[in-house]
Amino acid sequence: MADEPPYNSLPAITAWVKSLGYTGVQLPSWDGRIMDLKKAAESKDYCDELKGQTNGLTVTELASHLQGQLVASHPAYDELFDVFAPAELHGNPKERSAWAVEQMKLVIRASKNMGLPVSPSFSGALLWPTIYPWPQRPAGLVEEGFKELAARWKPILDFADEHGVDLAYELHPGEDLYDGATFERFLEATGNHPRVNINYDPSHFILQCLDYIGFIDIYGSRIKAFHVKDAEFRPSARAGVYGGYLDWKQRPGRFRSLGDGQVDFKQVFTRLTAAGYSSWAVLEWECCYKDSVQGAAEGAPFIASHLIDVPKRAFDDFAGAASDTARNRRILGL
Amino acid sequence: MADEPPYNSLPAITAWVKSLGYTGVQLPSWDGRIMDLKKAAESKDYCDELKGQTNGLTVTELASHLQGQLVASHPAYDELFDVFAPAELHGNPKERSAWAVEQMKLVIRASKNMGLPVSPSFSGALLWPTIYPWPQRPAGLVEEGFKELAARWKPILDFADEHGVDLAYELHPGEDLYDGATFERFLEATGNHPRVNINYDPSHFILQCLDYIGFIDIYGSRIKAFHVKDAEFRPSARAGVYGGYLDWKQRPGRFRSLGDGQVDFKQVFTRLTAAGYSSWAVLEWECCYKDSVQGAAEGAPFIASHLIDVPKRAFDDFAGAASDTARNRRILGL
Amino acid sequence: MADEPPYNSLPAITAWVKSLGYTGVQLPSWDGRIMDLKKAAESKDYCDELKGQTNGLTVTELASHLQGQLVASHPAYDELFDVFAPAELHGNPKERSAWAVEQMKLVIRASKNMGLPVSPSFSGALLWPTIYPWPQRPAGLVEEGFKELAARWKPILDFADEHGVDLAYELHPGEDLYDGATFERFLEATGNHPRVNINYDPSHFILQCLDYIGFIDIYGSRIKAFHVKDAEFRPSARAGVYGGYLDWKQRPGRFRSLGDGQVDFKQVFTRLTAAGYSSWAVLEWECCYKDSVQGAAEGAPFIASHLIDVPKRAFDDFAGAASDTARNRRILGL
Amino acid sequence: MADEPPYNSLPAITAWVKSLGYTGVQLPSWDGRIMDLKKAAESKDYCDELKGQTNGLTVTELASHLQGQLVASHPAYDELFDVFAPAELHGNPKERSAWAVEQMKLVIRASKNMGLPVSPSFSGALLWPTIYPWPQRPAGLVEEGFKELAARWKPILDFADEHGVDLAYELHPGEDLYDGATFERFLEATGNHPRVNINYDPSHFILQCLDYIGFIDIYGSRIKAFHVKDAEFRPSARAGVYGGYLDWKQRPGRFRSLGDGQVDFKQVFTRLTAAGYSSWAVLEWECCYKDSVQGAAEGAPFIASHLIDVPKRAFDDFAGAASDTARNRRILGL
Amino acid sequence: MADEPPYNSLPAITAWVKSLGYTGVQLPSWDGRIMDLKKAAESKDYCDELKGQTNGLTVTELASHLQGQLVASHPAYDELFDVFAPAELHGNPKERSAWAVEQMKLVIRASKNMGLPVSPSFSGALLWPTIYPWPQRPAGLVEEGFKELAARWKPILDFADEHGVDLAYELHPGEDLYDGATFERFLEATGNHPRVNINYDPSHFILQCLDYIGFIDIYGSRIKAFHVKDAEFRPSARAGVYGGYLDWKQRPGRFRSLGDGQVDFKQVFTRLTAAGYSSWAVLEWECCYKDSVQGAAEGAPFIASHLIDVPKRAFDDFAGAASDTARNRRILGL
Amino acid sequence: MADEPPYNSLPAITAWVKSLGYTGVQLPSWDGRIMDLKKAAESKDYCDELKGQTNGLTVTELASHLQGQLVASHPAYDELFDVFAPAELHGNPKERSAWAVEQMKLVIRASKNMGLPVSPSFSGALLWPTIYPWPQRPAGLVEEGFKELAARWKPILDFADEHGVDLAYELHPGEDLYDGATFERFLEATGNHPRVNINYDPSHFILQCLDYIGFIDIYGSRIKAFHVKDAEFRPSARAGVYGGYLDWKQRPGRFRSLGDGQVDFKQVFTRLTAAGYSSWAVLEWECCYKDSVQGAAEGAPFIASHLIDVPKRAFDDFAGAASDTARNRRILGL
Repeated sequence: MADEPPYNSLPAITAWVKSLGYTGVQLPSWDGRIMDLKKAAESKDYCDELKGQTNGLTVTELASHLQGQLVASHPAYDELFDVFAPAELHGNPKERSAWAVEQMKLVIRASKNMGLPVSPSFSGALLWPTIYPWPQRPAGLVEEGFKELAARWKPILDFADEHGVDLAYELHPGEDLYDGATFERFLEATGNHPRVNINYDPSHFILQCLDYIGFIDIYGSRIKAFHVKDAEFRPSARAGVYGGYLDWKQRPGRFRSLGDGQVDFKQVFTRLTAAGYSSWAVLEWECCYKDSVQGAAEGAPFIASHLIDVPKRAFDDFAGAASDTARNRRILGL
Repeated sequence: MADEPPYNSLPAITAWVKSLGYTGVQLPSWDGRIMDLKKAAESKDYCDELKGQTNGLTVTELASHLQGQLVASHPAYDELFDVFAPAELHGNPKERSAWAVEQMKLVIRASKNMGLPVSPSFSGALLWPTIYPWPQRPAGLVEEGFKELAARWKPILDFADEHGVDLAYELHPGEDLYDGATFERFLEATGNHPRVNINYDPSHFILQCLDYIGFIDIYGSRIKAFHVKDAEFRPSARAGVYGGYLDWKQRPGRFRSLGDGQVDFKQVFTRLTAAGYSSWAVLEWECCYKDSVQGAAEGAPFIASHLIDVPKRAFDDFAGAASDTARNRRILGL
Repeated sequence: MADEPPYNSLPAITAWVKSLGYTGVQLPSWDGRIMDLKKAAESKDYCDELKGQTNGLTVTELASHLQGQLVASHPAYDELFDVFAPAELHGNPKERSAWAVEQMKLVIRASKNMGLPVSPSFSGALLWPTIYPWPQRPAGLVEEGFKELAARWKPILDFADEHGVDLAYELHPGEDLYDGATFERFLEATGNHPRVNINYDPSHFILQCLDYIGFIDIYGSRIKAFHVKDAEFRPSARAGVYGGYLDWKQRPGRFRSLGDGQVDFKQVFTRLTAAGYSSWAVLEWECCYKDSVQGAAEGAPFIASHLIDVPKRAFDDFAGAASDTARNRRILGL
Repeated sequence: MADEPPYNSLPAITAWVKSLGYTGVQLPSWDGRIMDLKKAAESKDYCDELKGQTNGLTVTELASHLQGQLVASHPAYDELFDVFAPAELHGNPKERSAWAVEQMKLVIRASKNMGLPVSPSFSGALLWPTIYPWPQRPAGLVEEGFKELAARWKPILDFADEHGVDLAYELHPGEDLYDGATFERFLEATGNHPRVNINYDPSHFILQCLDYIGFIDIYGSRIKAFHVKDAEFRPSARAGVYGGYLDWKQRPGRFRSLGDGQVDFKQVFTRLTAAGYSSWAVLEWECCYKDSVQGAAEGAPFIASHLIDVPKRAFDDFAGAASDTARNRRILGL
Repeated sequence: MADEPPYNSLPAITAWVKSLGYTGVQLPSWDGRIMDLKKAAESKDYCDELKGQTNGLTVTELASHLQGQLVASHPAYDELFDVFAPAELHGNPKERSAWAVEQMKLVIRASKNMGLPVSPSFSGALLWPTIYPWPQRPAGLVEEGFKELAARWKPILDFADEHGVDLAYELHPGEDLYDGATFERFLEATGNHPRVNINYDPSHFILQCLDYIGFIDIYGSRIKAFHVKDAEFRPSARAGVYGGYLDWKQRPGRFRSLGDGQVDFKQVFTRLTAAGYSSWAVLEWECCYKDSVQGAAEGAPFIASHLIDVPKRAFDDFAGAASDTARNRRILGL
Repeated sequence: MADEPPYNSLPAITAWVKSLGYTGVQLPSWDGRIMDLKKAAESKDYCDELKGQTNGLTVTELASHLQGQLVASHPAYDELFDVFAPAELHGNPKERSAWAVEQMKLVIRASKNMGLPVSPSFSGALLWPTIYPWPQRPAGLVEEGFKELAARWKPILDFADEHGVDLAYELHPGEDLYDGATFERFLEATGNHPRVNINYDPSHFILQCLDYIGFIDIYGSRIKAFHVKDAEFRPSARAGVYGGYLDWKQRPGRFRSLGDGQVDFKQVFTRLTAAGYSSWAVLEWECCYKDSVQGAAEGAPFIASHLIDVPKRAFDDFAGAASDTARNRRILGL
């Protein structure tokens, strides 16, 4: 096995991914080493060409997290997020946001050209510094934040709708869409836009102590993409959910390789199946304790062992038949 | 303290109840020793007279459980339920049901005359013998059962609506309305009738392992009455939820005196308060281990210690003021 | 792998079962496509022939659940259970019961001819509609029910004893033998009949919240057969143990494919080993979420990974030796 | 309230105990400041006199822990236990044991004279140093230990039987009777002697992680005395059940004042009631954090609030009546 | 009882507080209605006068939270925190910080004049917007933040040391000192300054899922003040620790009146006692569900019932004596 | 697979061990069938020869448990431990201890000759009979015990230091070093000797209810060896941690084959990795329910599946760079 993934071209990386047993690959739309986003938006031929370079892997989605992130950013993080934008836009958040909106439209067009119905993304954030209500949040602040966020995304969402592409927001701390309540607020602020959907990633819910299983039962119909990522939250007498400004190895909440954390994936795959989810299960890997090559190698069989073939018929249909009202009434004593 | 409650007349029993520290009393509308239901339905004067015999206790509601029970009954239980009907109707379930419907209307009229906006009751049951799907339930059976149940209750509910009285079904094993799912089905079958409401009693949920706290968050707006009753479910290697046909002292699930069981009443009162419930908290007592006199005496201070005065203002309103959009946008960096 | 098991003849189905890695098969004695029960009861040659058609799989037991079910049935379920009996007996529960008794005797004779020492079965039920004590169960009702049940089974049990065959009742909701307490009562009603034994199936105990591990420690000596079946019980704020008349996919309690549910099979196999159980571990599969072919394929390696070779000697016997009283007394300071 | 209990004479200490609200008192039979054991064994008049000095408190039992302790002792503890014996017996365990046997007989006679049917005690220990099987226990060692222990106690038990007095062994670490298994072994070794009973004290079970509630359900019929004593076990990453030779304040397992520990006394009193226990609930107090005067003062109302009046009739007997077989059979559909 | 606390003067409010059963009162040093901070810093006479106006209540501490808060603030919150500063400093965070430093010195001098050895306070925050490491925190950022924070507090701490007053930082979300890890970092950045101490408030730890009991065992020697405040954290499928920008009534984490939340105060008082804490237990009350008057009234008996008198001697010292080496060696077999 | 391990010579046993998939082997230094300890201490050539007989397995450590055990023993166990010493020393604990000290020195020299930096061992015990403080431990007893124990080990530890070998005490009931607290006391008694280290074995902590995960976080830097051994503790109403003198199959606490017990090995390997442990993971196997051959065969893949490759770089280093103070201060708003 390669010591380090050959992350420099689509053919090279997909050859390596395939060797581990994966059957699909999600592409980072922002990474020029892997794909030329503008070209993909403009040319279906180029997209077909890309698909021919994957060593037989299916392209599952084009990810657009970094671009979505820049659609909205509170000034407290402006300098830190500049790294995701072209150098000429650094220090200019307003134009950076406009650029991000255009990028999202490229992703949408490229997804359509690739024949991909959904792109996972980030929402960006205006309110994140105020998650804890100290200082007290003034009346109307949250509403104002979501109003502005919706206003920025509305044109992108409409554009996505025209191209038949869903946006699947990864609910993620640091974004203004990070749990069910914030998702609902955004949905409402966009007039229940049909393209507002979810990239389900249980690792971020573990770190929030959110009931990530019950989440599927409530929001299942909006889940359009799925990151299979593990995490653990082990608070101590020294630090809890806010993590004491510690680094990943020392924070109580940390991402883990698949199977090493606390996510009950048996239940996750079961509830997603029950909710009718039938798209890809995409490994996302971050782990502070285990090498990435080991993590990647363990991921493929882990996911395979969790896939569920849905039943072709009910297990207890042996007595089944059409409904018979007269008989039913007899049984009820009527 | 009296050895045995003097349960033979309204003045006598209320004197005793008052001596224990209670401030209200729920009346069993079916019990002639306590009240004459027909007279109460017909005469507001009689109702005023009744109210004058309570030693200053407020009448909280007229209960109608036994009558509601007889509105619908599967034949398997017909003989057992005859005890709740006049002797001349024994063995005649059809006329017994008609009688029960008329009884319910009397309760509604009497409640109006008493100035009481709600009557707690039972739904009766047609489907209860089929709770476990063995033998397999044929297609359409459950729908048929609820269709019939709704058909029987619809005239009563409309009558209740005309008199401005709510029916609060106590969700209870043995009735077809015993949990949230069955309540929803009945609600749907009655066309979301506004008078279909709930008498919340957590003891029956403990014995079902149902999340009785989350229940309030979902169904709070339909909760119109509240039985403060405790229970415990302690399964063993010998018996579980179905109880092995054991008697109350040996069943794993059993009712208990307030504070002796597993109901988290701190949370119950909190969530009911959060849901806006502002009617009575009525002790219902059944306990196989403790004498009723002791149970009753302990109940009054127990309930009193759980009552919540709702805040007159928010605890952190010191910085509060009208919403200021310009300021809010500055705070968001806009 | 076949899309659908070829469930139409013994050679065909056993070929498929074997291809999945199983080494034995339990036969449904009631299913004419698989075996002719009457012939098997009458002819050892036919039984040998059957054993020759299994592609090398061992026949583990002849199951007799459907016949046992019909030995006793409360009228509330008569119409629903008719499907298990020949058409000419439909609507005639009395003769149906007589037929069922004869069927059980055929199973016993066939088991003897097959060289099988036990048949898993159901007890049937007279009391099941009264599992919840509302309406209150009258004095003597439960005793009467078990007296009648024992009276019906006594001749079968004696017949089984004569043929050296155990009956292993699967403790199952819907039957009157569904937990430890009911098993004890039946045992007592049959005079502690030696042929009254248990088919241990933890899935039914999960759905009752019964301590299925402790169960083995109490009843281990009577466990003569074992269904390896998984289940999960996940109550919500909408429904609990009684299931809200919901279907399998929505009920809080549901069967699952092996490894997908909540049964702690590590403990189950450990305690069965500790109790001296040494017969078969038979997959029984029902799952509302997963296809039966996948469930069956996963079952064989799952079971194999749980089998325990019992030790040939104690791990700490290095210092062991015969008991030496004088030395022991010295050690105790005597 | 007194700063320090006046523990120097029966009238003085009982006056103080009474002032705290207690209604009874257990007397330490070994303590000459409180009573003269020999005199009490010999004179009923003296016993009556003692009873007249208790300020109206009932004497609940004569405790005989220290004497029972010395009936048997492993040499490893001989020097440490000498403090409980007269100075002239120090260093002479054999005669000390003989003295202890005589003491126990005095206690039995005194109890009879006091009209007290039970004396709580300790069993002493021969095997305690071998609780952990390293070094491996040789074959027969445990049997030998219990054989000797039973041989020493047998004459005392027979003497107790002649005087109609039960011995209630407090199951306690350091004694050879410290849990259910050891109690059963002693019971067997004494030929199921009827006078072998239990002084139930849940604090010692908390520190053993033993299911102290289930214990009552198994051994209830042998529980003849009850110490109401609280404890908590809070293991850490530094120490667990063996306690690291730490002192009481630092050990993970420690005794606590009533209500400050982990004993679920609601359940304890419930299960004792269910088991038919109707004797005294005696405070025993040891706490490393709280002053004894505060602990004693809090104990009386704590115990009072847990007492249960048993019901005079079943709560659901309204439909009750004599058993009616014909009706029962109709209900079962027979 | 008064409908609303008369919060307008020291005599008025202390009269009310006393009527509820409290014996001490913590004064908000920033509130001119209650005290004149500058005057108190300058005049011991004025302080004595203040102490004479408390209706006999002891002044426990002068709180300095609002001033401490303004010592350091990230720009994202500058506008929101201006409310705590005089109007003329609004919009001028630099001068506001200088003012806050002077305020803290006044508090220190006033505390000394009042004879109070500790002031509870807040640390302020520079890093709070970066609690979640997205965007990734650049190398050195956290160190820089604590360096600056320590630099601002160092003069105040030295001033406090000169006056013999401890600062007890309330570890609180929104401040840079919010858990054990951040406290340790600040301690280190201030060179383990002896005046850096803790105002222990378990409510803020409940909302962080931090082990608030273990916290006492680690940091006990630095705990100099104690807020008795309750809270509950009940995450759902909609929101978790970050709270979905919901208001207090809907957030999963919320403050509660004493006894209504999840803090195990029995353990808190026990561990504080074990750690040698012997200063005040000060009620701090915030609750979104219960009226403040009810909360205040319930608080006094709640706290009283948790106070622990420390033992005057060990409970098992009856055998105690001076250490005897020879005897000890005999016991060890040496 | 062999029915029984060929445990009679180094080549034979290592061939078998290797066939199961193991890559290393720990040698019992006391067992003459496997190695000649004296020869190994004296001859590096013999050690090289030994290493050549392992069929390519690496020798991980020389174990010295039995010798360490005999360094110190309370008289209560003298007879039982004689089996570990040569027959001529039986009954002579003093010379036996001297012999054990010499043995330990041989192990140290042999380890050095083998190129092995650590030997796992036992501490022996003087205090073990007094683990439960009844009878009350006299003042100074524990200090005296550790003083003596340290005095006996000090020369061995110094000898080990001279030879560059660590002693890794397996914390084990029956030894005086059995948890963190006792380890700390011994460390202190030996003047924090650098050669006092730990052989981490979670099975012994499970049986003590000790937090074996947190243990690693505290003592990680002293962990120099690791036994991968599983266990379960399942207390009942009959027995708890002291085990009722029951045998292994019936004791609530018992060792188990890997994966069959309660040790969370995912966490164990993670925390050991986080603590920087990089030496061997050595299977130790004891199981009362499973045959040793099966246990050994399952162990190798179990351990392999838990090994962690440490990361070559941080997963989120994409934005990483050298620390930039000016930028950091801008981000903090300074």
